Amino acid sequence: MSIVVVGSIAFDDLETPTGKRERVLGGAATHFAAASSFFVEGVKMVGVVGHDFAMNDLDFLKERDVDVSQVQINKDGRTFHWKGRYGNDLNEAQTLDTQLNVFATFCPELTEDFQKLPYLFLANIDPVLQRNVLQQMDKPKWIACDTMNFWIEGKRDELLKTIEAVDILLINETEARLLSRERNLVKAAAIIQDMGPSVVVIKRGEYGALLFSCQESVQETFSAPALPLSSVIDPTGAGDSFAGGFLGYLARVGTLDSKSLRQAMICGSVMASFNVEAFGCERMQQLNWADIANRYRQFQQLIHFEIPNF
Amino acid sequence: MSIVVVGSIAFDDLETPTGKRERVLGGAATHFAAASSFFVEGVKMVGVVGHDFAMNDLDFLKERDVDVSQVQINKDGRTFHWKGRYGNDLNEAQTLDTQLNVFATFCPELTEDFQKLPYLFLANIDPVLQRNVLQQMDKPKWIACDTMNFWIEGKRDELLKTIEAVDILLINETEARLLSRERNLVKAAAIIQDMGPSVVVIKRGEYGALLFSCQESVQETFSAPALPLSSVIDPTGAGDSFAGGFLGYLARVGTLDSKSLRQAMICGSVMASFNVEAFGCERMQQLNWADIANRYRQFQQLIHFEIPNF
Repeated sequence: MSIVVVGSIAFDDLETPTGKRERVLGGAATHFAAASSFFVEGVKMVGVVGHDFAMNDLDFLKERDVDVSQVQINKDGRTFHWKGRYGNDLNEAQTLDTQLNVFATFCPELTEDFQKLPYLFLANIDPVLQRNVLQQMDKPKWIACDTMNFWIEGKRDELLKTIEAVDILLINETEARLLSRERNLVKAAAIIQDMGPSVVVIKRGEYGALLFSCQESVQETFSAPALPLSSVIDPTGAGDSFAGGFLGYLARVGTLDSKSLRQAMICGSVMASFNVEAFGCERMQQLNWADIANRYRQFQQLIHFEIPNF
Repeated sequence: MSIVVVGSIAFDDLETPTGKRERVLGGAATHFAAASSFFVEGVKMVGVVGHDFAMNDLDFLKERDVDVSQVQINKDGRTFHWKGRYGNDLNEAQTLDTQLNVFATFCPELTEDFQKLPYLFLANIDPVLQRNVLQQMDKPKWIACDTMNFWIEGKRDELLKTIEAVDILLINETEARLLSRERNLVKAAAIIQDMGPSVVVIKRGEYGALLFSCQESVQETFSAPALPLSSVIDPTGAGDSFAGGFLGYLARVGTLDSKSLRQAMICGSVMASFNVEAFGCERMQQLNWADIANRYRQFQQLIHFEIPNF
């Protein structure tokens, strides 16, 4: 059973220590759809683009069986455009310019067949819109969402109402601290779980990701490493690629048991590690299944150790 | 076969978000000896203390079979004294005051039986002294060392000469970048390996540690997680406790093969995780072997995942 993703589709102008690129196809929904499409068939993408967008830019997603029929074209404006720069610290982007354009009035409506799907990912958009979308769903098995400091600080009460209705929250380390008002991540995760989601994933960029999950009263913690890469070209979209691998795998297996959550964390880490190897979605377009399986084994090799005979 | 550690013995005045403590027994050699003593018998500690030091402060180490006979007492001055403060970011200490005292003229001389031991750890001291000590050793199997930004920036050439003669370098992330003049850690580790040590351990505080090892032309990378702890009392000495667990285990097993290095990384992580749970060496004093074995299994549980049937 497939997954619906609602979020941004964008053009990104990017400056990294390795180069400069303009009008690279990006956006959270795009990165998520590309990554999740390797794990689950018929990913449904909901977003909006402007009159400057050529729909065949999404052909690589269609080839991967992504349903882009609900990507609205708003002829009254231009596509969401983000300009960002990364210095030597590739963990932190500096936003140079954000033009929301048609994304500013985006109001996602799910068709009846999308509403009946069991899984939903709400990428980082206004928490009021996120709640509006999740209320359209007809008995979903789980709902996952992302957010950002802008909403945590600017629309906290609305965000808390949305998070209350969500099963899985993906959030980065700084945002987890901001949302929970707690520096210690173990305590922060527990505070966030009390807000609603039983599964909290804390993304830490080049340091990997932590999973805090409470299923049937069993609380557990899993630490996923990041793959140390000798070349990082563009970190944009790494978090959404992680979400795509993580939630795509969970949708594929259909359970939230400990074994699946742990495997999903590695699938997320694998997809994020590919994402950063090229600008935009370029790496995803060249990827095949053998690459993913090989990298999964690389992650296992990276962390493997045995219990000694003390 | 046992290990010699040469380094500081100190009194620390500590301020952390959880409390304030004065004249806590610390210093790199102390933390290292405490941690390594759980893995290898008869750890030899070389350092200097002043007239204000009560030798029975080291009784807990003697009880753990640490040989403190070569801790010099310099009656002409006071013991090395460090004052530091940690804010909410426990990864970073703010030094309020450093009084080197008798440590300023410390000139370690190894006795003949110490010189014949197979393993040496040079904690963070002047690289000229480090080289002086390592040259006193009689055919050691391996030599490990630590350093800090102060020497990397202030005595780079001397430090490079010392590092050239060392097999294992333990260094934190910021220092690795400073030493290699390279931001990417995979490239930084390779540059440092070219300086001499075949084993480079990059410590990342609450994010764990990375191992880069080249044994018999096989290059490999291992990522050790840090245990997410709900209470961190005092991070002082975590790096030296890590080194104690890591090198203590390597001395115990007597090899630098891949399996042992990976296990040693977890032993280091285990000891660092205990160290931060109380001020100074307090947690080490209450620790028993069952605690260590249990926590080792906690680390395995923290990172365990299976290869899925894709």
